[in-house]
Amino acid sequence: MIKIYGKNCIREAIRANGELQEVFIQEDVSKKDVAFLELLKDKKIKYSIEPKKKMDSLFGTGHQGYGAYHKDYKIYGEEILDFITKSPKRLLLLDGIMDPHNLGAILRSVDAFGYDAVVLPKNRSCSITETVAHVSTGAIEHVKIAYVNSLSVFIGRLKEAGYWICGTDAKGDTDVSQIDLSLDLAIIIGSEGFGMTRTLVKQTDYLLSIPMVGHVNSLNASVSTGIILYALKK
Amino acid sequence: MIKIYGKNCIREAIRANGELQEVFIQEDVSKKDVAFLELLKDKKIKYSIEPKKKMDSLFGTGHQGYGAYHKDYKIYGEEILDFITKSPKRLLLLDGIMDPHNLGAILRSVDAFGYDAVVLPKNRSCSITETVAHVSTGAIEHVKIAYVNSLSVFIGRLKEAGYWICGTDAKGDTDVSQIDLSLDLAIIIGSEGFGMTRTLVKQTDYLLSIPMVGHVNSLNASVSTGIILYALKK
Repeated sequence: MIKIYGKNCIREAIRANGELQEVFIQEDVSKKDVAFLELLKDKKIKYSIEPKKKMDSLFGTGHQGYGAYHKDYKIYGEEILDFITKSPKRLLLLDGIMDPHNLGAILRSVDAFGYDAVVLPKNRSCSITETVAHVSTGAIEHVKIAYVNSLSVFIGRLKEAGYWICGTDAKGDTDVSQIDLSLDLAIIIGSEGFGMTRTLVKQTDYLLSIPMVGHVNSLNASVSTGIILYALKK
Repeated sequence: MIKIYGKNCIREAIRANGELQEVFIQEDVSKKDVAFLELLKDKKIKYSIEPKKKMDSLFGTGHQGYGAYHKDYKIYGEEILDFITKSPKRLLLLDGIMDPHNLGAILRSVDAFGYDAVVLPKNRSCSITETVAHVSTGAIEHVKIAYVNSLSVFIGRLKEAGYWICGTDAKGDTDVSQIDLSLDLAIIIGSEGFGMTRTLVKQTDYLLSIPMVGHVNSLNASVSTGIILYALKK
């Protein structure tokens, strides 16, 4: 079970037929937001109305009067490859994303730009937490998430399946506009702080770069992911 | 005073001649990272070596053995307009960004794409917290931050100064590629959840959009900021 909170998050979970075990609404909010109560009744979702104190103890701060118990999200493994529906195929690989805010924001971009799934290695990866679910603002209901034992081995399988492997690096030598968008593509985003691991860099067909001019010369991992997915969409 | 932590953050503060009052290094880390101690001595920065327990109590988790007390960052007001050095001029306005992770990530993008400053309204805005400084990974040392009483009044001043005002909205009717990049531009990013306030939308010369295809159809505010700044750079 995972706790989710915030009106947008819960509304999106309902809209996507997410498996909500119970919804909690703050007393004063329930009186103002009659439409939300109607929606819960309409969808036959179990709910209870609680005082603010109880809501705070269940969901911390930032719940805005809305909280829910959500069944654990389905987690995929290497079989994720059978669930890629887009043509040409697109897949996002996250090499060492540890920060739940980044993973949540990445799930939103993955959904917004029409990707089916993200793949993470079991080690050195953020797991699916309440923060991930909250920051994803409902995108987690739509994006499939897979954890694999080794990204390197998985990339081998991707190559066999005909994917072209695009790494990303501040020192990359390929501009996104040079990529043939009719190819099946797997995009790898490196970790915050350390970038992609060297083994994976060697496995790439292209190493994409984002031109930058600043002092620090690096972007937040969720921001660079968003930019790459946007640029590949153009 | 603001606490900063993490090796990258502190190294960037030193490199940018940020005003560090005192640096703290974890005992075992100080033995391994001799180069860092040499740097502190070289720059004549006051430091002390502390056991892990003390580091944790001062800087929480995630400090990696490095922490510092940083003098409060300089905050600007409307006079920020006198500090815009780029030509053509560029300025980023944040209309209701409340989340410190988003503000920190935005500061990185602002630095990476060569903007001088961000402007926020005093109300309904995230203030400069430890989380903002940490997530910005040193970008906060380079980007000027201004808080103004009213964004709407400030936009009036921007117009008088010859800036063209670009709002951003999921329903925007202008593609970024249509913007004449030789103009002086002020970009407005709306709040997480509610977008731009209506008063500001009316003040815009252009309303930019990011084409999306997903279910949730919205991006994290720091991600959409990064995409807009990237697209305006191309």
